[in-house]
Amino acid sequence: MVGGGQGAFIGGVHRIAARLDGAFALVAGALSSTPEKSRASGAELGLDPARCYADFRAMAQREARRKDGVEAVAIVTPNHMHAGPAIEFLKRGIHVICDKPLTATMAEAKKLARVAAESKALFILTHNYTGYPMVRQARAMVARGDLGRIRLVQVEYVQDWLTEAVEATGSKQAEWRTDPARSGAGGALGDIGTHAYNLAAFVAGMEPQALAADLASFVPGRQLDDNAHVMLRYADGAKGTLWASQVAPGNENGLRLRIYGDKGGLDWGQEDPNRLWFTPFGQPRQLLTRNGAGALPENNRVSRVPAGHPEGYLEAFATIYSEAAQAIRAHQAGQALPAGVHFPTLADGLAGMRFVEACVQSARRNAAWVTL
Amino acid sequence: MVGGGQGAFIGGVHRIAARLDGAFALVAGALSSTPEKSRASGAELGLDPARCYADFRAMAQREARRKDGVEAVAIVTPNHMHAGPAIEFLKRGIHVICDKPLTATMAEAKKLARVAAESKALFILTHNYTGYPMVRQARAMVARGDLGRIRLVQVEYVQDWLTEAVEATGSKQAEWRTDPARSGAGGALGDIGTHAYNLAAFVAGMEPQALAADLASFVPGRQLDDNAHVMLRYADGAKGTLWASQVAPGNENGLRLRIYGDKGGLDWGQEDPNRLWFTPFGQPRQLLTRNGAGALPENNRVSRVPAGHPEGYLEAFATIYSEAAQAIRAHQAGQALPAGVHFPTLADGLAGMRFVEACVQSARRNAAWVTL
Amino acid sequence: MVGGGQGAFIGGVHRIAARLDGAFALVAGALSSTPEKSRASGAELGLDPARCYADFRAMAQREARRKDGVEAVAIVTPNHMHAGPAIEFLKRGIHVICDKPLTATMAEAKKLARVAAESKALFILTHNYTGYPMVRQARAMVARGDLGRIRLVQVEYVQDWLTEAVEATGSKQAEWRTDPARSGAGGALGDIGTHAYNLAAFVAGMEPQALAADLASFVPGRQLDDNAHVMLRYADGAKGTLWASQVAPGNENGLRLRIYGDKGGLDWGQEDPNRLWFTPFGQPRQLLTRNGAGALPENNRVSRVPAGHPEGYLEAFATIYSEAAQAIRAHQAGQALPAGVHFPTLADGLAGMRFVEACVQSARRNAAWVTL
Amino acid sequence: MVGGGQGAFIGGVHRIAARLDGAFALVAGALSSTPEKSRASGAELGLDPARCYADFRAMAQREARRKDGVEAVAIVTPNHMHAGPAIEFLKRGIHVICDKPLTATMAEAKKLARVAAESKALFILTHNYTGYPMVRQARAMVARGDLGRIRLVQVEYVQDWLTEAVEATGSKQAEWRTDPARSGAGGALGDIGTHAYNLAAFVAGMEPQALAADLASFVPGRQLDDNAHVMLRYADGAKGTLWASQVAPGNENGLRLRIYGDKGGLDWGQEDPNRLWFTPFGQPRQLLTRNGAGALPENNRVSRVPAGHPEGYLEAFATIYSEAAQAIRAHQAGQALPAGVHFPTLADGLAGMRFVEACVQSARRNAAWVTL
Repeated sequence: MVGGGQGAFIGGVHRIAARLDGAFALVAGALSSTPEKSRASGAELGLDPARCYADFRAMAQREARRKDGVEAVAIVTPNHMHAGPAIEFLKRGIHVICDKPLTATMAEAKKLARVAAESKALFILTHNYTGYPMVRQARAMVARGDLGRIRLVQVEYVQDWLTEAVEATGSKQAEWRTDPARSGAGGALGDIGTHAYNLAAFVAGMEPQALAADLASFVPGRQLDDNAHVMLRYADGAKGTLWASQVAPGNENGLRLRIYGDKGGLDWGQEDPNRLWFTPFGQPRQLLTRNGAGALPENNRVSRVPAGHPEGYLEAFATIYSEAAQAIRAHQAGQALPAGVHFPTLADGLAGMRFVEACVQSARRNAAWVTL
Repeated sequence: MVGGGQGAFIGGVHRIAARLDGAFALVAGALSSTPEKSRASGAELGLDPARCYADFRAMAQREARRKDGVEAVAIVTPNHMHAGPAIEFLKRGIHVICDKPLTATMAEAKKLARVAAESKALFILTHNYTGYPMVRQARAMVARGDLGRIRLVQVEYVQDWLTEAVEATGSKQAEWRTDPARSGAGGALGDIGTHAYNLAAFVAGMEPQALAADLASFVPGRQLDDNAHVMLRYADGAKGTLWASQVAPGNENGLRLRIYGDKGGLDWGQEDPNRLWFTPFGQPRQLLTRNGAGALPENNRVSRVPAGHPEGYLEAFATIYSEAAQAIRAHQAGQALPAGVHFPTLADGLAGMRFVEACVQSARRNAAWVTL
Repeated sequence: MVGGGQGAFIGGVHRIAARLDGAFALVAGALSSTPEKSRASGAELGLDPARCYADFRAMAQREARRKDGVEAVAIVTPNHMHAGPAIEFLKRGIHVICDKPLTATMAEAKKLARVAAESKALFILTHNYTGYPMVRQARAMVARGDLGRIRLVQVEYVQDWLTEAVEATGSKQAEWRTDPARSGAGGALGDIGTHAYNLAAFVAGMEPQALAADLASFVPGRQLDDNAHVMLRYADGAKGTLWASQVAPGNENGLRLRIYGDKGGLDWGQEDPNRLWFTPFGQPRQLLTRNGAGALPENNRVSRVPAGHPEGYLEAFATIYSEAAQAIRAHQAGQALPAGVHFPTLADGLAGMRFVEACVQSARRNAAWVTL
Repeated sequence: MVGGGQGAFIGGVHRIAARLDGAFALVAGALSSTPEKSRASGAELGLDPARCYADFRAMAQREARRKDGVEAVAIVTPNHMHAGPAIEFLKRGIHVICDKPLTATMAEAKKLARVAAESKALFILTHNYTGYPMVRQARAMVARGDLGRIRLVQVEYVQDWLTEAVEATGSKQAEWRTDPARSGAGGALGDIGTHAYNLAAFVAGMEPQALAADLASFVPGRQLDDNAHVMLRYADGAKGTLWASQVAPGNENGLRLRIYGDKGGLDWGQEDPNRLWFTPFGQPRQLLTRNGAGALPENNRVSRVPAGHPEGYLEAFATIYSEAAQAIRAHQAGQALPAGVHFPTLADGLAGMRFVEACVQSARRNAAWVTL
């Protein structure tokens, strides 16, 4: 693991996710920016001190040389520190599991894409919301035509933790997320907007062709957007909106997707993830559940416990890891990806970067339409 | 009553609303477009045949001459038939209670406004959602600063009844609502977008300064919009979106308003109208109820039954009528409007017309910003 | 109207309900216990002073003699004042619409039943929850076998307004409801338990054969039960529970009914009355709505506005009045009750009285089973 | 691990729970009833074949002798196979983590209790619902008096999977759960009723003194109860009900607890476990969230991810394991249990057994009161 030392949030999530289904064991890390902290963090996690590295380059080099070196590395640093380590490991044929957004800048993203294209290793992006069973169900239902032709894609990801200037009062999480140098051009856009964008594309099975964005930084002094209103247009005439906000009091992680076609609709929210509304036009609304009545194989495949026992964020995240493991095993064996396995790739990461870039461009031009 | 004969929907609603609190009695009408139908409809409602008029002009003239002539008239015709009757009655000093939107065209709206300005009678527009007790509570909470400075206004009104081309298969309601000659330039915009716009303005206590709209007519052959995505900008930097759709399967009358300030948020939905979420930043979310714990006087004033006994659409509509009656009584007595009484006026109607007009203009210019 | 003077709650509800559908007009009353108050209350309601009576006997006598005397009377007094007026009016052939529970004592109930049996007039009991469209839908679904054979009936009516001893601190509503002399043997049992009991019987289409009840008076000094736990057994082996409480903080009017058979279940709650869950075994849960997709004729018949526009407590109450009016018209015309018309009768009232009596008996015998 | 071989459900849950927080590694097992199956199951899980035992006795003996023998064993067999293995391991000083209910019979339970009392090892019962953060919050709120004096405890656990006779059509899970020889005297009572009972006691901080139970076996031919209605009485006058059902269509794992005191109430449901309603009397209802605004330290302590990212069943289960690990570590070090650590013990298991026994006794005596 690169990053995820003491005080970090997402590193711990990755570690639980990696271990939940038993497919990965943590054996080495460059966990922090200083050798001391890295060692201390490693010790806390029970790592062999010899495999607690002072930086990602040392880790990539030495692990690549070890017979029992890591097969895959998780990169859980702030955005501007994704490309560097990813490239080092990919070059050495070590599979990379990387947090989103792909990078802080499009230039880095493209460089990383070039390296990945030449690498024998896989690159997996943890757009973890695609791991939810009901999201898999939704995608399958759209794909098989349950909604008819898609007309509307309404997605929002709404939080409140940046309502006040917590970046100025000691929140490490807020500091780097509101810092263009570490996060890139998008604030809420990059942090949560890319998740919303990816989720919508994953379920709808299509990406918008153009967008118009109005960005705001409501908190005085904040350099990046903390609210984004985006209108979307798709190639076939479908339309949508994406709303990302980190300044809406009362919202914790309100990621919600509604999709409507000429035959029916779907409605899913991350805070109650084991349920999915299916609303066939002219018929009673149906509440589908994880592993429950009406569940499709795509839903059951990634469920662990019976219907009514809630699975959550960590399980969805673990599904990304489990499927990464399956993909890596298949890759190592020279086999095709097992049926049903899905994981977000570098292409998803690039799409997210283009989304952020397009929103920023549009916003600078007074919300003019920008082609994706 | 003008309009509201057999087969009409909103006329029946107005009649129940008018009678619910006992403030009005129906005594005369020009209920339909033909004398026979008008008479038949009047007979069904128990009207004196002598006061069942063949058209609104006859009604205005004769009722104005009667000693016991109507004090007020309800106009419940399609949009293009609002201005004509309203002007006839206002000219004769008869108070007008008119369905929304104000008119079909801005030209009519302005003409009506001029007549109203010179009339001694009141003009009341039935933006009925402002009659809900929790909407009154929300407005009061914003006004007294519970949310701090408003940053975001997110409003949507989502239906599904025009998902298919029902205007082509015999739905009278759909026919005129999708017909520019009878509805004006707005489809979903005029029918439900104006309600959403009015509700947001009523609660937020402010109207946007500019908007950018992307309209769609998803159903082949439909002449007016059946879906509208609108971005909003307010004078002080607040932003918002308005979404109106009549093609989103599974949505019946999904009018929902969320407002966020730098201190807290509010969330209200028309389909569960007796509840209002109040989310002060950093504190547990509160679920306020009609006439219940935490209710402000503005909420209790317009409540009829104890908390937990739901009041609904007709009660909210009746509140508009009751307050119209109070206003008329005060007006007749030369007194000021009683404290707390609120009803939507011609100014609200004009604002709604400007909203529709601006959306249509913006959409024609590829969703460019249009100043309101 | 008998009762319902200034300061009363349920009288106002009856008046709105009576007028909502336009079937009744209030023309006379014995509204209060003293002539002065009765007159003052009548004046407030615009009644002819000559028809504001000092007491119900005077009213019954004189109205019966008038050519334009009342056709029906609403009795909205405390429980111990139901039988007296009801008998006076029934004897004179004036239809009676009476609030529940039927009476304060079983002796009164039986006497009233004898008079009613001999009267040419109808007796209608306002078990108003049976007027909700989704309750009608539920009853129809059970009757046609959608749930299969019924196994479980779980009903509860939960409030919190008697959590503290408000009867000792000036609440008129609480005073008489906690007073055995005015309410009878049941506290929460009579006030809300009878509603729950009636609702369950109405929907299930059957009444229990035996019950075992554990009653409590949690508030010190309270003479009647404020909480009742009741187990139910039906003739065919079905079982159930009924819980009535007025001391459960956070509950306003939490009347909820769940019924399960060997093929499916239903779940309905009064605070969100326009929705009904239908859960066919092994299939996705369905959310049925008032007047919406999947609505049966029994649901549509008593709906006034389109799906998604909530109807509430007053509308359901008004349906009892409207159907009473239809029944009275048919009765006067010597015709059969129109198809679909339903209203609670004296038999329902007697069933409620037996329920209260049986609960009290059971509780005295340490929750032994008592046959109904 | 004892039990949990191929085809079992709860074994897999225990394995994920044990590994989720990284405190346990699975190294040995007697996973199935035959040596072959045990080996096959072990191989699937990557166990050393030498540590895949044919039966629990062999496992206990040999692991106790190994230097690197297991420190703790998870027992995940059907109820009648709990006591045997537990005793074997406890005798050898190996800590036992055992699924509930404690045993199939009270005799076994008492025997096990005697052995445990003499063992140096710990016994942990996986009443996993006590691991939910909001359940910890609820318990803490009751303990510190937020609800005042408790009056009512309403708990239910409702499922539908035994609505039909699936035990006769090949469901292994249903077979043993409806078989007295393997499950003991309780059907739904033992399987889910004990969970409901334990949850209520955990949160309320008290157990009932007496109960009256009405049991049913609705499915023809079923030998054990599939529905239980239980009334509860507490020492200080509080009352409650417990409803356990496996035949209520539309319910997956509907475990819900409501507790009311003279100052406020709480309402929690397992299917939406990250939320807890707190309803202080006379104030707006509050919706508390896991790790969110208003969270107490008891809630935060057992939370892993930020508010709004749902944690579920596996996380709550993992908390039991994590706290078992902490308890074992402290025990090994001769230290007191760390502050805040809680896990269900043999005493909880005995209480559950008494509950089942008392219900069965009461039911046989026509729901007479039985003292606990």
